Amino acid sequence: MLSTMQDVPLTVTRILVHGVQVHGRSQIITWTGEGEPQRRSFAEAGARAVQLANALRDELGVRDDDRVATLMWNNAEHVEAYFAVPAMGAVLHTLNLRLAAEQLAWIVNHAADRVIIVNGSLIPLLAPLLPHLRTVEHLVVSGPGDRAPLAGATARVHEYEDLIAGRPTTYDWPELDERQAAAMCYTSGTTGDPKGVVYSHRSIYLHSMQANMAQSMGLTDRDTSLVVVPQFHVNAWGLPHATFMSGINMLMPDRFLQPAPLAEMIERERPTHAAAVPTIWQGLLTELTARPRDVSSLVQVTIGGAACPPSLMRAFDELGMRVCHAWGMTETSPLGTVARPPAHAVGTDEEFGYRLTQGRFPAGVEARLTGPGGERLPWDGESAGELEVRGPWIAGAYYNGPGAEPLRPDDKFSADGWLKTGDVGTISPDGFLTLTDRAKDVIKSGGEWISSVDLENALMAHPDVAEAAVVAVPDDRWGERPLATVVLKEGADVGFETLRDFLAGEGKIAKWQLPERWTIVESVPKTSVGKFDKKVLRRRYAEGELDVTKF
Amino acid sequence: MLSTMQDVPLTVTRILVHGVQVHGRSQIITWTGEGEPQRRSFAEAGARAVQLANALRDELGVRDDDRVATLMWNNAEHVEAYFAVPAMGAVLHTLNLRLAAEQLAWIVNHAADRVIIVNGSLIPLLAPLLPHLRTVEHLVVSGPGDRAPLAGATARVHEYEDLIAGRPTTYDWPELDERQAAAMCYTSGTTGDPKGVVYSHRSIYLHSMQANMAQSMGLTDRDTSLVVVPQFHVNAWGLPHATFMSGINMLMPDRFLQPAPLAEMIERERPTHAAAVPTIWQGLLTELTARPRDVSSLVQVTIGGAACPPSLMRAFDELGMRVCHAWGMTETSPLGTVARPPAHAVGTDEEFGYRLTQGRFPAGVEARLTGPGGERLPWDGESAGELEVRGPWIAGAYYNGPGAEPLRPDDKFSADGWLKTGDVGTISPDGFLTLTDRAKDVIKSGGEWISSVDLENALMAHPDVAEAAVVAVPDDRWGERPLATVVLKEGADVGFETLRDFLAGEGKIAKWQLPERWTIVESVPKTSVGKFDKKVLRRRYAEGELDVTKF
Repeated sequence: MLSTMQDVPLTVTRILVHGVQVHGRSQIITWTGEGEPQRRSFAEAGARAVQLANALRDELGVRDDDRVATLMWNNAEHVEAYFAVPAMGAVLHTLNLRLAAEQLAWIVNHAADRVIIVNGSLIPLLAPLLPHLRTVEHLVVSGPGDRAPLAGATARVHEYEDLIAGRPTTYDWPELDERQAAAMCYTSGTTGDPKGVVYSHRSIYLHSMQANMAQSMGLTDRDTSLVVVPQFHVNAWGLPHATFMSGINMLMPDRFLQPAPLAEMIERERPTHAAAVPTIWQGLLTELTARPRDVSSLVQVTIGGAACPPSLMRAFDELGMRVCHAWGMTETSPLGTVARPPAHAVGTDEEFGYRLTQGRFPAGVEARLTGPGGERLPWDGESAGELEVRGPWIAGAYYNGPGAEPLRPDDKFSADGWLKTGDVGTISPDGFLTLTDRAKDVIKSGGEWISSVDLENALMAHPDVAEAAVVAVPDDRWGERPLATVVLKEGADVGFETLRDFLAGEGKIAKWQLPERWTIVESVPKTSVGKFDKKVLRRRYAEGELDVTKF
Repeated sequence: MLSTMQDVPLTVTRILVHGVQVHGRSQIITWTGEGEPQRRSFAEAGARAVQLANALRDELGVRDDDRVATLMWNNAEHVEAYFAVPAMGAVLHTLNLRLAAEQLAWIVNHAADRVIIVNGSLIPLLAPLLPHLRTVEHLVVSGPGDRAPLAGATARVHEYEDLIAGRPTTYDWPELDERQAAAMCYTSGTTGDPKGVVYSHRSIYLHSMQANMAQSMGLTDRDTSLVVVPQFHVNAWGLPHATFMSGINMLMPDRFLQPAPLAEMIERERPTHAAAVPTIWQGLLTELTARPRDVSSLVQVTIGGAACPPSLMRAFDELGMRVCHAWGMTETSPLGTVARPPAHAVGTDEEFGYRLTQGRFPAGVEARLTGPGGERLPWDGESAGELEVRGPWIAGAYYNGPGAEPLRPDDKFSADGWLKTGDVGTISPDGFLTLTDRAKDVIKSGGEWISSVDLENALMAHPDVAEAAVVAVPDDRWGERPLATVVLKEGADVGFETLRDFLAGEGKIAKWQLPERWTIVESVPKTSVGKFDKKVLRRRYAEGELDVTKF
């Protein structure tokens, strides 16, 4: 039996029109480094987005699902592109300006971008790539920065402001299928080629509603959100869309991401909310300790991308800035969980423990844990398995290039279509996720899993240990066993047996999980983003480069 | 270009599973009139809903989109039916226990209900209907009340608790299309036959997300909602679904809707939110004035169904209970607007004015005003037109009986599929709706509209006027003109010219809108729900029954 409800698609267009019509007074405030920031109302930004859509169609010939890329900081023009491109039926492709040049060129070619909108300050990054870009016909430059390096470009170069000036502020938006592509973003891909996630109008719309639910970020037009998380990183966690849906003001740092200007913009513009990865906040805390400022406006700080150390969370509590963990990834749009403590824990000793988890799943995200043997594990807060998720804003495949079938690698998607997150963790009976390891780093020992992260944290708690990385190495009897790789503090002199006894002490680590292979190294190899590079350690072990003691 | 996102349907099933899994501790508290209320956790209610689904399928033979009706108060068992029936793929049909017996029988036959779940206390209402019900095969009785009147029923009679006892607490829920019917509700229909609105899984899911957005009701698991608005009235404004989505506790009054027990349950259970029509709150205010109680827990009171008089709003403000207007109808699921003042008005003189509007449209509800000549009117806060709305939880047709095409009357739906609400009002530039009249009552005078309600309110402000109703009557020159029908207070003696001058005074009413036809009546005829029955007045005028003075 069919319902009698209207069949109205969920589109980015609708979010744009609503933001302009109903929340026209709300503002995008972009930091300029000196003097007054740029202030642009949603009504103004919306009108400019319409002009941009007209320019892209009439001047640049953008059609249907042509890809329009952005290589930009967080600013009002980037928000304009966020709405103009999907609303006209084309696909916004946000480029990660932190990637290596070679990777960036690969991504632009793979997505077959026809247009790149670039901030003037990023021309030095873009110019050397241009000879390697096969599909880009137009470059649109916005904001300050020397244009000279673009002089030899074969693509046509446009000035953003000139391009949109005088264009109509109306556009007969096409009726779109809500499952149509709206935006795409490539995962940075620590292994293999980067993989493209293509968000639909539907997924963005639903994710925005979710972000604005009181159990989630729960902001309204009385709030101003400091959007530190880059717009090139999973749609800035969905904030530009969520803000237009509810009239939330945005404070955009543009390229001023250093602790001092961030502290200044918080004090001057008094945002009520902020979103960023922990390293940004660590830097801000150091800055605020050295030069105290009034940051009391910030009552909610969403932290994701990595776990926030408890010490940092407590330090911000003392400043009146309440940190709230969220977990997600490019494939999850990204809001997968938000760590609002449950009602019964508020004001009790349990509350802080809940805040340290990755958070609780909303109705839109189904979750399950898969154990070492492929079995489903219970939500008991103890059984650790790989997290798999399902939902209307979760990826079910990757983009495989123009005209090609979507890519569904077995190690990323289950046979029944769930996303394998590659994260290992536990889920409490009330739906709170705690991540304990990455699936590729967990040690699979005799059908059980040992968390490399748990061993590392326990080792690093020893006063003589500077750093410790634990990796899985092959073992004839158990399949895999942990190898402990230890960096001692300068002048420290401690034996492996002492360290093993330390791990076993006070029930920190179960006996069967204790490593029997140990090695001292001068430093742990790191990836470009500063994480332990366990691939390198495993290779060194395999090639006999490490001096391993077994006992 | 297709997105790479998973295609996961938005279903009531998902809300149920989530509520049980993640918010299992949250409670449905049902008032029992004496002693402790019944307390049932979402986990318990969810398990019982699963048992009910098993019973409906295995014992009663409910299949596919069979209609399962409820004739029940607000209580935990009614919530169980809310989830069990749609999740199994059948259609929940909530019956309005305030309707006349004849209308109720008509509705049950039109929907072809196979099962009715009835509260024991409502058997006296149901029993006399039974001989007229053509499709009902099973009656399931829940809660206290004499079963004797059902003795002669041809339908099989079951006890709810016996029926579900011992059934499995798992069910292999079917994969449903999100556009499939989940629930239906008939409009009370002041003219013509009642009309059935059929909600889809999608519309209920999206409406629940909307209700939980911070800009809307914005509740979390720290809240308890006193759900006074009946579950048979537009899904209790979506609260049972919204609460399971976010773990919000429900306080259910069952049949105890009188001011004294409501005041007692507020004081004892300390809900933070309540939802009801103004008349309930008027009664509560009288009760609280006579017998003060601690109602300070109620920080948000959603009022809909009719405008809340400003005096009532102020009185509740003084008690610390903040009233928030919402507007909607059976056809809008019902949340169409919510009157949260915009950020710039908070704490200013404008704030109270915004709170008196019907509220602001969310992103999910598109709105437009259509003038007397079919033209689109601007959102200028002044141009009054008929409100038309569009959105994924707005009806686009009515149910026309088993196997028949949906019904789309021209006076209810525009050619392009928008719902004509039948309400006349203005929309401010920032999207706040103010209703001024019903479309059928507005006076269409020379291509302009005159609000009957404005004239009535202005007349009733005169100290000698007890009641006043204004209706449109035919006029050779202007098409229609207003007829003022006045009830004078006892002993009052005032001429029509004095009243007309009073209307014209201080710019209250524009000169061209002043009535030239006046009549005195002993009382204004009323409908069954206490509203002015303007149909009767128009008929009396047409038949020359009124003594009209024209000047």
